[in-house]
Amino acid sequence: MRRRRESTISELASEVERFVKERKWEKYHNPKDIAEGICVEASELLELFLWRTQIEAFEMIDDPVKFREIEEEIADVMIYCLSLANSIHIDLTNAILRKLESNKKKYPAEEYRGRARL
Amino acid sequence: MRRRRESTISELASEVERFVKERKWEKYHNPKDIAEGICVEASELLELFLWRTQIEAFEMIDDPVKFREIEEEIADVMIYCLSLANSIHIDLTNAILRKLESNKKKYPAEEYRGRARL
Amino acid sequence: MRRRRESTISELASEVERFVKERKWEKYHNPKDIAEGICVEASELLELFLWRTQIEAFEMIDDPVKFREIEEEIADVMIYCLSLANSIHIDLTNAILRKLESNKKKYPAEEYRGRARL
Amino acid sequence: MRRRRESTISELASEVERFVKERKWEKYHNPKDIAEGICVEASELLELFLWRTQIEAFEMIDDPVKFREIEEEIADVMIYCLSLANSIHIDLTNAILRKLESNKKKYPAEEYRGRARL
Repeated sequence: MRRRRESTISELASEVERFVKERKWEKYHNPKDIAEGICVEASELLELFLWRTQIEAFEMIDDPVKFREIEEEIADVMIYCLSLANSIHIDLTNAILRKLESNKKKYPAEEYRGRARL
Repeated sequence: MRRRRESTISELASEVERFVKERKWEKYHNPKDIAEGICVEASELLELFLWRTQIEAFEMIDDPVKFREIEEEIADVMIYCLSLANSIHIDLTNAILRKLESNKKKYPAEEYRGRARL
Repeated sequence: MRRRRESTISELASEVERFVKERKWEKYHNPKDIAEGICVEASELLELFLWRTQIEAFEMIDDPVKFREIEEEIADVMIYCLSLANSIHIDLTNAILRKLESNKKKYPAEEYRGRARL
Repeated sequence: MRRRRESTISELASEVERFVKERKWEKYHNPKDIAEGICVEASELLELFLWRTQIEAFEMIDDPVKFREIEEEIADVMIYCLSLANSIHIDLTNAILRKLESNKKKYPAEEYRGRARL
């Protein structure tokens, strides 16, 4: 377990690449369709929270069945993101770190403390 | 650069957690709203491929401006996924590896080779 | 105004058809891409409510600028639905009435009164 | 059949309103959750076209089972749009006609003929 927690993004991306190649699914995993797949899985994740309040959404964590469903849907989103990164050679780790830096400038901590919009 | 490629998921998740905490955005980053955010960002990613053929989607990679846009949108999706994982204590790496194992059983390589549906 | 409120779905669909034909956009308005467009517009609508509570979402109605934005995004979703119906010859009115009938059976009023899930 | 094709948007919206009221679902049908519902249904529609080319998407029309599925998913999107309009008193017909007028100005037919982007 400990070892796994320490998997890098690129190790996980290699796992996904192997899965896709073993099935010869590269033709399906073109950027347009994977982006569709990410949307589809993101909505399946969202559906778990539909009709619930924000507080009820937090409470779902205590339900092991629901928690597992959330885990599975978020994993689906991530797996497609890794596959998209594989298909067009994006360095995801750098993309994430760069976006975080850009967000830090866009939302200065002092101005946005406690509020999502100015 | 080399070091960064080797960031683990949990290191990236910590970066996102710090970003959220510095802005006191924990109240916004409840599971329901983050799931909405993932959907919103996934659709912004999809919009980049709208009205394009699957081949044209691949060709966008050669356009550095478009490529950067794709990188930024996929990073947004991932950042929200990391934040959702932080907010309800999901071990993303294990969730991904477990889902890949389950997908391997659901889609046996021999039967699904070259086709997405049986 | 009164006259317009009484437009039928098929009259609105004809308006959308004319708009698409005048721009020779039939090739773009294939079912796959319009379905993507519906997703994209649905997410732009959702984005208006992001980070807000369910009560705050209701309060946005009193803000004429926000109200207009909601109107515009929901109109975009509907226009793409009408265009998809045009492109593959769906009788939307019948599809809606038939789905409502099916929902009435799936969610009997007595059992589901006041709750979204059993 | 003929009569139904001529249902107005407001007649359909009344049908949806009755369905919601009979189940006392007004609390669920707040703008935030309905917007989530529209996203979820839009993605279920999109999923029908996933991994298919734009041409294959057109060919699905000839498969009565697939055609029915498309009809049902697009109806779900429309029903939620009608419900959102009911919940915050949007005149959908006017919203659609106004958005079409605005789109005509944004995309002049001469400039955009045959192309989605300039």
